[in-house]
Amino acid sequence: MESKGSVKKVRRGLFVGRFQPPHLGHLHAIKQILSECEEVVIAIGSAQYSHTLENPFTAGERIEMLLMAIRESGIPMERVIVVAVPDVGEHSLWVSKVVSFSPTFQRVYTNNPLVRRLFEEAGYEVKPIILFRRREEMGKVIRQRMIEGGEWESLVPRSVAEFIKKIRGVERLRDAVGKDYPG
Amino acid sequence: MESKGSVKKVRRGLFVGRFQPPHLGHLHAIKQILSECEEVVIAIGSAQYSHTLENPFTAGERIEMLLMAIRESGIPMERVIVVAVPDVGEHSLWVSKVVSFSPTFQRVYTNNPLVRRLFEEAGYEVKPIILFRRREEMGKVIRQRMIEGGEWESLVPRSVAEFIKKIRGVERLRDAVGKDYPG
Amino acid sequence: MESKGSVKKVRRGLFVGRFQPPHLGHLHAIKQILSECEEVVIAIGSAQYSHTLENPFTAGERIEMLLMAIRESGIPMERVIVVAVPDVGEHSLWVSKVVSFSPTFQRVYTNNPLVRRLFEEAGYEVKPIILFRRREEMGKVIRQRMIEGGEWESLVPRSVAEFIKKIRGVERLRDAVGKDYPG
Amino acid sequence: MESKGSVKKVRRGLFVGRFQPPHLGHLHAIKQILSECEEVVIAIGSAQYSHTLENPFTAGERIEMLLMAIRESGIPMERVIVVAVPDVGEHSLWVSKVVSFSPTFQRVYTNNPLVRRLFEEAGYEVKPIILFRRREEMGKVIRQRMIEGGEWESLVPRSVAEFIKKIRGVERLRDAVGKDYPG
Amino acid sequence: MESKGSVKKVRRGLFVGRFQPPHLGHLHAIKQILSECEEVVIAIGSAQYSHTLENPFTAGERIEMLLMAIRESGIPMERVIVVAVPDVGEHSLWVSKVVSFSPTFQRVYTNNPLVRRLFEEAGYEVKPIILFRRREEMGKVIRQRMIEGGEWESLVPRSVAEFIKKIRGVERLRDAVGKDYPG
Amino acid sequence: MESKGSVKKVRRGLFVGRFQPPHLGHLHAIKQILSECEEVVIAIGSAQYSHTLENPFTAGERIEMLLMAIRESGIPMERVIVVAVPDVGEHSLWVSKVVSFSPTFQRVYTNNPLVRRLFEEAGYEVKPIILFRRREEMGKVIRQRMIEGGEWESLVPRSVAEFIKKIRGVERLRDAVGKDYPG
Repeated sequence: MESKGSVKKVRRGLFVGRFQPPHLGHLHAIKQILSECEEVVIAIGSAQYSHTLENPFTAGERIEMLLMAIRESGIPMERVIVVAVPDVGEHSLWVSKVVSFSPTFQRVYTNNPLVRRLFEEAGYEVKPIILFRRREEMGKVIRQRMIEGGEWESLVPRSVAEFIKKIRGVERLRDAVGKDYPG
Repeated sequence: MESKGSVKKVRRGLFVGRFQPPHLGHLHAIKQILSECEEVVIAIGSAQYSHTLENPFTAGERIEMLLMAIRESGIPMERVIVVAVPDVGEHSLWVSKVVSFSPTFQRVYTNNPLVRRLFEEAGYEVKPIILFRRREEMGKVIRQRMIEGGEWESLVPRSVAEFIKKIRGVERLRDAVGKDYPG
Repeated sequence: MESKGSVKKVRRGLFVGRFQPPHLGHLHAIKQILSECEEVVIAIGSAQYSHTLENPFTAGERIEMLLMAIRESGIPMERVIVVAVPDVGEHSLWVSKVVSFSPTFQRVYTNNPLVRRLFEEAGYEVKPIILFRRREEMGKVIRQRMIEGGEWESLVPRSVAEFIKKIRGVERLRDAVGKDYPG
Repeated sequence: MESKGSVKKVRRGLFVGRFQPPHLGHLHAIKQILSECEEVVIAIGSAQYSHTLENPFTAGERIEMLLMAIRESGIPMERVIVVAVPDVGEHSLWVSKVVSFSPTFQRVYTNNPLVRRLFEEAGYEVKPIILFRRREEMGKVIRQRMIEGGEWESLVPRSVAEFIKKIRGVERLRDAVGKDYPG
Repeated sequence: MESKGSVKKVRRGLFVGRFQPPHLGHLHAIKQILSECEEVVIAIGSAQYSHTLENPFTAGERIEMLLMAIRESGIPMERVIVVAVPDVGEHSLWVSKVVSFSPTFQRVYTNNPLVRRLFEEAGYEVKPIILFRRREEMGKVIRQRMIEGGEWESLVPRSVAEFIKKIRGVERLRDAVGKDYPG
Repeated sequence: MESKGSVKKVRRGLFVGRFQPPHLGHLHAIKQILSECEEVVIAIGSAQYSHTLENPFTAGERIEMLLMAIRESGIPMERVIVVAVPDVGEHSLWVSKVVSFSPTFQRVYTNNPLVRRLFEEAGYEVKPIILFRRREEMGKVIRQRMIEGGEWESLVPRSVAEFIKKIRGVERLRDAVGKDYPG
């Protein structure tokens, strides 16, 4: 009953990202996917990393922020499944890793050329995401603004901004600048 | 508003298991935890393993079965968060791994002595789970019955039994007997 | 004669084993595969292990013994490709690992139920190997006889027996008995 | 016939490279080694990587291309052994890893200062390779030309060029530009 | 000046063990080594493991206990170097791992056949340790007695017994019984 | 008896560094820590790496140089414990790794913002190190001078300089320039 349009919806679409942090572009993409699929599996990549410039937040924090953002946005929670997928370090194994850590899915959504290629080589249907503003770089822009003291709050859901402030995420990101590894 | 009793509920309780497969004892435990905590984080351990006697199902399949089981049981989905946590191979790092892959939690529920010890050494409050029938061995019993051709369906939710049959999970488990690794 | 029959041969067949050590059953299987395929890819599994009861010989030693055995047997070398594939520790990634370390292949030959299942779940055609004596256990029998001082030389090609003696392989195997890891 | 010259040949020489992709400089080096050694062991390093700017091709594809290139060049196959060696991530273990994955060898051929140092510290004889044109950078030049749309086919054997086109290797390399990891 | 005997002492001897926990047999061995070498390098193997039946104590705890035991025994601290060496999971790399984590040494002391073989294959001189009572099994005996509630304190230095009691090590060991991994 | 001042000393302070190589700034820091703590635990980070621009020396070599430097400086050896800690690759696990490989400590000394943050998030007291000249960059300066042929010997203890020359460490560092990985 969930898909009432004349076009039959795909059962599940996979949306892969790092969500450092979840932002408005991600919510836009999730809505697009849910207009074409009954459910969306949101796969948080690079799950084991945190406290770096590229990956300041842990998988657990990203899960928590994503759930907040989805609730705030009014997207129906029962149509969303969030999973965390660790990097495996070898591209040729990565699709199998995602498949192993995710409920089954029938289509992949991404604008990343490498992600698209890896899933296509594995036989999956891949569709692009419709850009929301300058979406593809939005995560990077947010982290850059955080480091430089700029305004970043308007690019993320309000609940996400509050969470980041509560855990002092901006300070954490700045401490990671220029020091990739302890010692 | 969620906790209306005179005793203030803990914000979140963590429930660690392997869920190979999710069974009635797990649902019983989740209900107990939700009577004491506002939310439960269900952490699927040994997430990277599958196709073995101890871990026949992938993390993705276990997530899918858990979500089915929770829906079927009437447990409110909005109070449940499911995460998958890979084994790290070193017990002294394991609690940090769970913390990194989970939203924050304030209490841990387990009957496993090692899990209890590791979390207590890390300073967490740990509470036992009230046994449901012979719960602690129920996963093992189910897998044993599957291998031997016994009746196992009554120990799991109906949706879980159907899912396992659809993916031919019993046959997979039997193929793993006596052969721990390919080659 | 080899590929002129009325039935068109498959381009390449994959033969996975641990080859600890290569024995007469392996040669028998290779001949069978070459009667049905133009070329055989011999994939040495568990490649990173050595000096254990299950895996006494290194990947390099197993490659060297396989090449000796194939030459001795008269099997045409130009139709054989030998590759070593490290275990990845997660069954759900293993087929991708084999694919990544092997030239392309179109069919898999194995009697191991787990190997069969993993390749079938990944969409490959899998065929059984015709048993040579008690082939499936021959590697185990050989290692057992080596440990107990029994006669094992008649189960392997002459060149393999000589190589094992030259590197004092039987003594190495015995040193591994009962001590799985140094320290 | 092979070693009857006045100078006694070394039994086996090791030639380490990444072969991304195999090119004319590699064939030139193999011929040099075979003029000084009875056999050459070609060790494909960084074997587990693929789909990156530095390592676009899988170990299996590199094996397949090397075998094609050697056949095309007329180098006698029976004097060549190709092995793939995964990176181990710790330089102090790397020589042991190569030794474990290779048939025995008595001499190492390389122009890489770090490879030379590591093998010399482990007690091996190391000899330089006679440059073929600008050999040392040829792999890098080829990948750069592929990315920029330049002419690269004349730097590799004809069979290698055909293989790369068949698997759409240039497109794969371009998809890896600027995106080191999925997500 | 340190070696005044008529026989010139070896500069450094390596003593590998797991030290779970350090016991009187270990001290006996250290004294033997120091009668033949100027210094001893004590290498704590399987360093990353803890909270298991075979490896109840962390590397840090084992270092702390070893230092206590050596002080208590009157062995001159300035002739002892304690290092921790993680297992590498591949026997063919293990000697290189020990070499990388230890100051240089010229001789190895062990009764373990596999350790002896691995170091001998790498070209090291290996000498046996003179047994102290039933030394080789003493660690195992101690852990067994701890589990069963027997008397174990007389087999370890007094300071080690006190340390284990302070950190509640016996309880930790018992919690590991029958549960190899959390979940 | 060791702490006779009116202010009670902390039992143990942890000093984390890579010690590539140990230099005068490190000795200055160790003296500061020993003025405030009864003992110092020197934790050698990134222990598994060597033969790179950032980490030219093995953990064993760094241990050996640290012991030489401490002896030469007159710092009392019995108040110093040196341990090597491998990187774990995931910042969220790193503090647990250090704790597992070190004897217990009550305070951490560091000027590295990320190290400070990770230990503070884990609940440890962290204090800065009083700079000795341009201490924080001294290791980098030394390695840079080694590469460029500058004077570096005055920045390290005499015994360390001699050791580096004996093992031809400067040549090793130069061989690592521009070639991060073999092959």
